[in-house]
Amino acid sequence: MRIACWQAATHPSDVAGALARLRVRAEQAAAAGARVLVTPEMSLSGYDLGSRRLRELAEPESGPMCGEVARIASESGIAIVHGWPELAGEHVYNSVRLVDADGTGLATYRKTHLFGAIDRSSFSAGDTGVVQAVVDGLTIGLIICYDVEFPELVRAHALRGTELLVVPTALMSPWHFVAETLVPARACESQLFIAYTNWTGRERRLEYCGLTRVAGPDGRVVAIDAGTRDGLLVTDLDPSLIAEVRKETPYLTDRRPELY
Amino acid sequence: MRIACWQAATHPSDVAGALARLRVRAEQAAAAGARVLVTPEMSLSGYDLGSRRLRELAEPESGPMCGEVARIASESGIAIVHGWPELAGEHVYNSVRLVDADGTGLATYRKTHLFGAIDRSSFSAGDTGVVQAVVDGLTIGLIICYDVEFPELVRAHALRGTELLVVPTALMSPWHFVAETLVPARACESQLFIAYTNWTGRERRLEYCGLTRVAGPDGRVVAIDAGTRDGLLVTDLDPSLIAEVRKETPYLTDRRPELY
Repeated sequence: MRIACWQAATHPSDVAGALARLRVRAEQAAAAGARVLVTPEMSLSGYDLGSRRLRELAEPESGPMCGEVARIASESGIAIVHGWPELAGEHVYNSVRLVDADGTGLATYRKTHLFGAIDRSSFSAGDTGVVQAVVDGLTIGLIICYDVEFPELVRAHALRGTELLVVPTALMSPWHFVAETLVPARACESQLFIAYTNWTGRERRLEYCGLTRVAGPDGRVVAIDAGTRDGLLVTDLDPSLIAEVRKETPYLTDRRPELY
Repeated sequence: MRIACWQAATHPSDVAGALARLRVRAEQAAAAGARVLVTPEMSLSGYDLGSRRLRELAEPESGPMCGEVARIASESGIAIVHGWPELAGEHVYNSVRLVDADGTGLATYRKTHLFGAIDRSSFSAGDTGVVQAVVDGLTIGLIICYDVEFPELVRAHALRGTELLVVPTALMSPWHFVAETLVPARACESQLFIAYTNWTGRERRLEYCGLTRVAGPDGRVVAIDAGTRDGLLVTDLDPSLIAEVRKETPYLTDRRPELY
């Protein structure tokens, strides 16, 4: 299974531009043979926009933003994971959605761990745990940014069968440790693939640090972006590696949940 | 609080020698101002000895091995964490014990996550979760080697107030990833100090990789051993750093346990 992560330069609040750039990247990724394209947190709007602006941009899943992504996916022939400010009743959620290569919405996840004042001032917290969908036979799980810092949620994904956990993120300096240490640790300890996909560039107070990477179930980083450029990271995943490392070191069955 | 980790060269099955070397190291650590000395997994006997030899060497906590450690601790004036094959009824456990600087046994922990054939062929699994004791006002938790690879157990320690988690280990090549990535990840995600103390040298099939280190609650490695030498790693811990990093990033209260 070939996947692509788009480490994108920020263009805050530019939804039309984000969709136009997504179309270009989706076509490039599909041409490179990728079956799934992963994009950063809130990839259609930008992240650190302030609560008023985010509420102005927020749309329900049935709105034009998600509709255009569905068209891009079906016209490019690639599944897409994108973020957007999701309007649901009075709530604005920090959401990601997995759209299949035929444009069908397969799964939507609302960020459950809100990060500090930036998230709390703008978003309601989601209340679903493990959100998954199957693409080309691969079980893909959805979480967002700060969520990956909690080993419990990644473990829950592993126990429910997630093989590839996609993590759109908006990781800023100086938190390089998250990409460089926590992400490989999560992949290793729960023995699944993680595609951690970040912004690059500056957005208001934040300097995004890039460091987009795919870590494998043995913790090895199978693909790593070179620094902070705007570009696609294309890599092949071999899902059989998951069973192989779990046979060698059976973390999931060696757990002693009755003791914790 | 100053602590010392003894990265020790293996001398398999040499209990008398281990106790003599421990006395030297305890005196050195105490002279350096350390209040606690941490030693590797099964530090009094060696680890990869085979089940028959380990059963021959096994003693209860009331036996002469633990008695001599108590004398070393009280005569050196330093608390000691040591490992030994613990005999209890028909069972042999892979145990560690924290002895106070006056020779009092404060806590004993039996390894709960058994690692592969080496552990399973020789030891019964312990069935206690969080084991702690207080030394000089610092709450110290005890786990062993493979245990630290399970985020759940380290999290349970953090939630129960462990400030310094000591991890006697027997980490062999090629598992450098555990020391280099998982240990700092555990310290960061649960926001406590971890003193990971390994063997160096060869024991039957195993080549121990050293890499003894102390990681802080921000994930930063505050002290790191230079490679594979036999020696003491002495470092100062500032427990106030724990509250500081938990205030900045409140992982423990940002958890959503109802969702996992």
